[in-house]
Amino acid sequence: MESTRDAPRVTIADVAREAGVSKGLVSFALNDRPGVSAETRARILQVAGTLGWTPSLRARSLSSKRSFALGLVIARDPEVLGSDPFFTSFIAGVETILAPEGLALVLSVVPDEPTELQTYRTLVTDGRVDGVFLSDLRRDDARIPCLAELGLPAVTLGRPDQPSPFPSVSIDDTDGVAESVRHLVELGHRRIAHVAGSPAMLHGGRRRDAFSAAMSAAGLGNGQIVETDFSIAAGADATRVLLSQPERPTAIVFASDPMAIAGIGVAQELGVSVPDQLSITGFDDIEFARYVYPALTTVGATPMVWGRTAATTLLGLIRTGSAADVELPAARLIIRGSASSPTSH
Amino acid sequence: MESTRDAPRVTIADVAREAGVSKGLVSFALNDRPGVSAETRARILQVAGTLGWTPSLRARSLSSKRSFALGLVIARDPEVLGSDPFFTSFIAGVETILAPEGLALVLSVVPDEPTELQTYRTLVTDGRVDGVFLSDLRRDDARIPCLAELGLPAVTLGRPDQPSPFPSVSIDDTDGVAESVRHLVELGHRRIAHVAGSPAMLHGGRRRDAFSAAMSAAGLGNGQIVETDFSIAAGADATRVLLSQPERPTAIVFASDPMAIAGIGVAQELGVSVPDQLSITGFDDIEFARYVYPALTTVGATPMVWGRTAATTLLGLIRTGSAADVELPAARLIIRGSASSPTSH
Repeated sequence: MESTRDAPRVTIADVAREAGVSKGLVSFALNDRPGVSAETRARILQVAGTLGWTPSLRARSLSSKRSFALGLVIARDPEVLGSDPFFTSFIAGVETILAPEGLALVLSVVPDEPTELQTYRTLVTDGRVDGVFLSDLRRDDARIPCLAELGLPAVTLGRPDQPSPFPSVSIDDTDGVAESVRHLVELGHRRIAHVAGSPAMLHGGRRRDAFSAAMSAAGLGNGQIVETDFSIAAGADATRVLLSQPERPTAIVFASDPMAIAGIGVAQELGVSVPDQLSITGFDDIEFARYVYPALTTVGATPMVWGRTAATTLLGLIRTGSAADVELPAARLIIRGSASSPTSH
Repeated sequence: MESTRDAPRVTIADVAREAGVSKGLVSFALNDRPGVSAETRARILQVAGTLGWTPSLRARSLSSKRSFALGLVIARDPEVLGSDPFFTSFIAGVETILAPEGLALVLSVVPDEPTELQTYRTLVTDGRVDGVFLSDLRRDDARIPCLAELGLPAVTLGRPDQPSPFPSVSIDDTDGVAESVRHLVELGHRRIAHVAGSPAMLHGGRRRDAFSAAMSAAGLGNGQIVETDFSIAAGADATRVLLSQPERPTAIVFASDPMAIAGIGVAQELGVSVPDQLSITGFDDIEFARYVYPALTTVGATPMVWGRTAATTLLGLIRTGSAADVELPAARLIIRGSASSPTSH
């Protein structure tokens, strides 16, 4: 016998009585298990809704071994994370799918790779999540065999460079970089540099390779490349290095918007006018991109859409046991004010 | 009898045998309950660590009724959220406390107040969190009586304008706004405007009142004020309105950095030079503030410190049943390049 301090809880028995079916059938219908006809399930859910039945997570977890939560483990310096709007937008996209279903997102920020792998193990041991998103894929990513061994459903953001049992949700970001280079070449630029992201991250390397390929295709060699860790500070430093050269570039393709915005700032500080003396392009289309001056010509990567699609794919995988890879529409160049024809000087 | 597919799990019995104490004592020590001497607890923890014991969340939850997770429910448009680095920094600060203790953060983004309250109820029903952070306090905030009724431990960010049973972690943001106004007045500004945040949010109203009070104290009346919803777009629009007046302000105090950065962009677009023809100050000190040009003179609100302190306070409340209010050091003005003496024109 259970004492109830609050209003008595509506039980499965109440729903069964009202719907005129067995408690077992109600339990099956409410726990989303097979073996209940669509019509019966609909009637049971309707009755449960009318009576105000809410599931008990503890009961659900124990009976179904599901935690009704998804996990995102981010291995970045917390200080750096705060300045990258990509994750907030991605998370916001995930939440638009989870919230209406009453599912939660369990978020962990970890300092390094060993802690990262330990965190996944603990999430599994604790039964805290039903699946995870794998972001910032790295070369020979240790997380993929680790998660495969743990048996935890996962979706990778982008395609890994190794065999993976997990569906991926990817966006072709090479087209957008190539488009940026072609746009600058058409405007008349020849000395075009690239401020790249981290070579340890697959998308950093992919964008750098796309830049070099597009430069070669235009007959301009590989183009000058400065590697960074994707931080705003590194983007500013790289711009300073590029602009302090005797023969400085007339255009810079940045691997992310935060670095490109810092690049505009450094150029203005050095008295190099954007876009007259220096054209700049970014990657991501974060909201700030529209509001800096000149507004940033950039590649629209739609992190919210990515979040939504990744959440839908992961839930599908968890519920049905399989999910197909999804290729999002290629990220396209959005032309604004930060790139123009080079003035002779 | 339980089948184990993986390596056999180290149990409390193993730890007890190795430490030479009873299983009950090990359980008490590992579950952080009173009644174990500090010395014994230390020895048990050491043995448990050496053997590689990890707690089972399900077992911990069932025995101690604790979920080992904290919750953050944010009621903002996901699209707007992605552009406000405050939350990412705050969350990063929270994670620096939770991660080393193996605790998780459960994050929900909800579209409106009814969904928000329902989300708290579900978090409690599901036993998913041990406590929550209450951010973006509003006037007569319905969450406070709701959480008090639910009996869920909480910490409010800032002090509510109503009786509250919860400890608060607050930062005096009025001093920073007053300092901004005094700084501008000392530079020679008289026509100073304020782009305020949402009046429905306590911090929006508080900063606006601090602005008016400082203007009055300087003998400059209340100052012109434009209210916004704290979004970047609204900050840009407000700047456009202020600068299109026949007698435009020579300085604008913005209630947030994202709006101030948009303000610099709009001014540059309109050919109004910052800081020569228009001085601008912000609030938050997000990382971008240092990298735009001119670098933003702003008030440093240290959201990461806020996150760390709020997490420590909430964990203290959960573990001991009580926690004192914490007042963080007042947010101070950081002088950079976006404010200077007005040029006559």
